[in-house]
Amino acid sequence: MSTADDDRARVSETNSSFYRAFESGDMDALRAIWEQSDRVACTHPGAPTVLGWDAVGASWELLLEAPVRPQFILTEEVVQVVGDVAWVTVVENMLVEGGSGAATAVNWFVRNGERWQMVGHHGASITRPVIG
Amino acid sequence: MSTADDDRARVSETNSSFYRAFESGDMDALRAIWEQSDRVACTHPGAPTVLGWDAVGASWELLLEAPVRPQFILTEEVVQVVGDVAWVTVVENMLVEGGSGAATAVNWFVRNGERWQMVGHHGASITRPVIG
Repeated sequence: MSTADDDRARVSETNSSFYRAFESGDMDALRAIWEQSDRVACTHPGAPTVLGWDAVGASWELLLEAPVRPQFILTEEVVQVVGDVAWVTVVENMLVEGGSGAATAVNWFVRNGERWQMVGHHGASITRPVIG
Repeated sequence: MSTADDDRARVSETNSSFYRAFESGDMDALRAIWEQSDRVACTHPGAPTVLGWDAVGASWELLLEAPVRPQFILTEEVVQVVGDVAWVTVVENMLVEGGSGAATAVNWFVRNGERWQMVGHHGASITRPVIG
């Protein structure tokens, strides 16, 4: 693989691990995936953006307390890498008891030494099929 | 200003110009702000993500055809720059005839020579006050 392909593969793997951590309610895994810094930002669908790891981490602690978490099927993933930053656009197809739904997300990452860490997540429910 | 402050100021100005172009229905301005490339991504609130300038530009052409466009008051803007990439989180407070609303957005940019160009926009309506 070229270096660029390798970067994209690593970012994709980190992105997937984020959803696996959510599915399995693994707060320690989420903590390792996210950068523990003031520059991180997270927007859960419909909610205001929370800024900085203290607030972002607290939002995940709350989310993981839910009795039922969704299962994710990720589609339309596109990874872009520019230097030490990467962004991933993806469709989050969610399977939950009693229903299902889909959301668009952009997740972004920075390279910290050998690994990529999440510095942002912005999710939005898909509620309409077309633009305009 | 330090170079970092200068970068943040330029990104902030580009971000503001994006909303001014939307307000004034200026497609030529939007075309100059967005990178004309396959790696751009745009998610209008509630809609699926569109990828690549051909699709992203077409979505803006449609949006600008609307008889009434919102006015934007931007709040809680935070700009982060890492190398040749920047991201901006911002609350889009929208004033429209017959109502108003607010959305969260993340906009991201790459440095192309002397200027910063938009490569991504992900917007989501704010529909709930808290996470959980």
